[in-house]
Amino acid sequence: MRAHPDKLKVVGLAAGSNAERLREQAAAFGATVTALASATGSEGLIAVATHPDVDIVICASSGTDALEAVLAAIEAGKTIALANKEVLVMAGALVTAAARARGVAILPVDSEHNAIHQCLHGRRRDEIRRIILTASGGPFREMSASALADVKLEDALRHPTWRMGRKITIDSATLMNKGLEVIEAHWLFDLPGDQIDVLIHPQSIVHSMVELKDGSIIAQLGGADMRLPIQYACSYPDRWEAPVARLDLTATGRLDFHKPDLERFPCLRLAYRALEAGSSHAVVLNAANEVAVASYLEEKISFVSIPRVIEQTLDAHSALPATTLEAVREVDRWARRYSQNVARELELKV
Amino acid sequence: MRAHPDKLKVVGLAAGSNAERLREQAAAFGATVTALASATGSEGLIAVATHPDVDIVICASSGTDALEAVLAAIEAGKTIALANKEVLVMAGALVTAAARARGVAILPVDSEHNAIHQCLHGRRRDEIRRIILTASGGPFREMSASALADVKLEDALRHPTWRMGRKITIDSATLMNKGLEVIEAHWLFDLPGDQIDVLIHPQSIVHSMVELKDGSIIAQLGGADMRLPIQYACSYPDRWEAPVARLDLTATGRLDFHKPDLERFPCLRLAYRALEAGSSHAVVLNAANEVAVASYLEEKISFVSIPRVIEQTLDAHSALPATTLEAVREVDRWARRYSQNVARELELKV
Repeated sequence: MRAHPDKLKVVGLAAGSNAERLREQAAAFGATVTALASATGSEGLIAVATHPDVDIVICASSGTDALEAVLAAIEAGKTIALANKEVLVMAGALVTAAARARGVAILPVDSEHNAIHQCLHGRRRDEIRRIILTASGGPFREMSASALADVKLEDALRHPTWRMGRKITIDSATLMNKGLEVIEAHWLFDLPGDQIDVLIHPQSIVHSMVELKDGSIIAQLGGADMRLPIQYACSYPDRWEAPVARLDLTATGRLDFHKPDLERFPCLRLAYRALEAGSSHAVVLNAANEVAVASYLEEKISFVSIPRVIEQTLDAHSALPATTLEAVREVDRWARRYSQNVARELELKV
Repeated sequence: MRAHPDKLKVVGLAAGSNAERLREQAAAFGATVTALASATGSEGLIAVATHPDVDIVICASSGTDALEAVLAAIEAGKTIALANKEVLVMAGALVTAAARARGVAILPVDSEHNAIHQCLHGRRRDEIRRIILTASGGPFREMSASALADVKLEDALRHPTWRMGRKITIDSATLMNKGLEVIEAHWLFDLPGDQIDVLIHPQSIVHSMVELKDGSIIAQLGGADMRLPIQYACSYPDRWEAPVARLDLTATGRLDFHKPDLERFPCLRLAYRALEAGSSHAVVLNAANEVAVASYLEEKISFVSIPRVIEQTLDAHSALPATTLEAVREVDRWARRYSQNVARELELKV
């Protein structure tokens, strides 16, 4: 917003609970409407997201707090710049159907999906053979299966490339973050799981790739700076100069690519399983993962118990049509309850 | 042609002097018109290239033998798939002006320029910050300056990635091939030299890249199989399944990028100099290089004398407007005469 005051204007700002910071930012950027979810709930978020002066809604909340607001923004015809995974993982069918019906674009802000969007620009859907999401591999990329069992929380919280919140950093270490991205990619690009591959790429320079029908691969490369995908989502279909450091491939030196190890990192396998099993399984996957990661962050379960919690919860779930928001919420509630019980059984005896 | 008999039909074939092979190929592919340059000269090539049934002319001759035929094909409204560098290096101004006037597309078949074309597809010219041509670096990539002085012909003829003719293999070892590609890129994509960079990339997997205005880099990756760019030039703007091996980035392992060393490989520096100095300098560069490489292939001059011949010839040239075919031919003749004299002076005393 600071780089392009001539092109972008903040109409509204919504936040979770930090009233002071919201006030500061609203003053700094001249926002005319604000909402604090802790005070106004969904109503406030919806009011900001559907304000008549708004063209683009950037949704960067975590979880599904903003789901109603995103659906309301789509209904109001706003372009959606989406940095939130759960909205699509839990309600991808609902959200993409609404966007299609209203002719609204959903532009991904996640660096991987943003890269895919850039690679696909100007190409037809039937030209795509598969998309390849790259993954840093997390801090435990080269750790043995036995060492993974004893992973300390402080080590899991040390991500090699990106500085992020605690939950997503753990998701990155388990590769569940990539699993959620596979499901997100399914909804964003309308592709089945077998056309969405994952490659470990420790340098995080190639943000993702698309393999086309003739075998040609188109890749997007850039530094680890989220301002680039955020700006792209705002400028699209134009491109603007960006306040990011220029990528110097000769300084990077080399780029490596490996297959992900689904034995050591079962969360990625579970995400593919959930995607194939239908959309209510993705809701279960996401909910059970949130519960398991919260338990791990409280040092109640071990690192390798995270996928166990998720797998046992998935095993117990029978597919349901998740075509309404209420059905999604119901599956979510069930999965949280169930996985909490599983997590308790797996709790470490100290 | 064998992979897509339902989409492609060979109307005509033209060749240099191998009458038997031309007959064989014409029979195998059902060509109705053929020409042998050694028998019919430009006239025959022009007749094939302008045949009324022809939509696309693939020009893969070497040197400027096909220049008149390419210009005639453009005049006749044919799409040009261009695998020949010299046509643009020597007569880029003429050829691109004719193509623009006639609304004819020139589609590059060179793997690097083809990659750039793929990366630029769907993007506006003003979005381009620079293009980055990748180079294998040739067999002497890591050789010291002193060792380069004693390079044996048989070593220079051993290219690490591509199997090609003798002249282009030497050009690849001196990096002049990349220099000629810089000039080619200037004409194909209408960019000045300072927006065309070269990176050494020994694995030849990333065929080239484009850096966009916001710092994002789009790259095209593929195996070392020329059938892919040839097919792309025929299928564009569509894409078809291609009979090429699928690229497995995990088998490739790693990708490296280095800055080219213009001290050890002065030919690349000379190409930038010629591009900046104006189009008659590019004609001189190309002619002097052909003479120098021919001398080297006859083992008359040393490897490091190749750039010396070119540099001394460029030094002796004063820019001329090279806006007609006759002017180009005249500069070319002068440069060949002059560089032959320089080469003779540098001949090895055995």
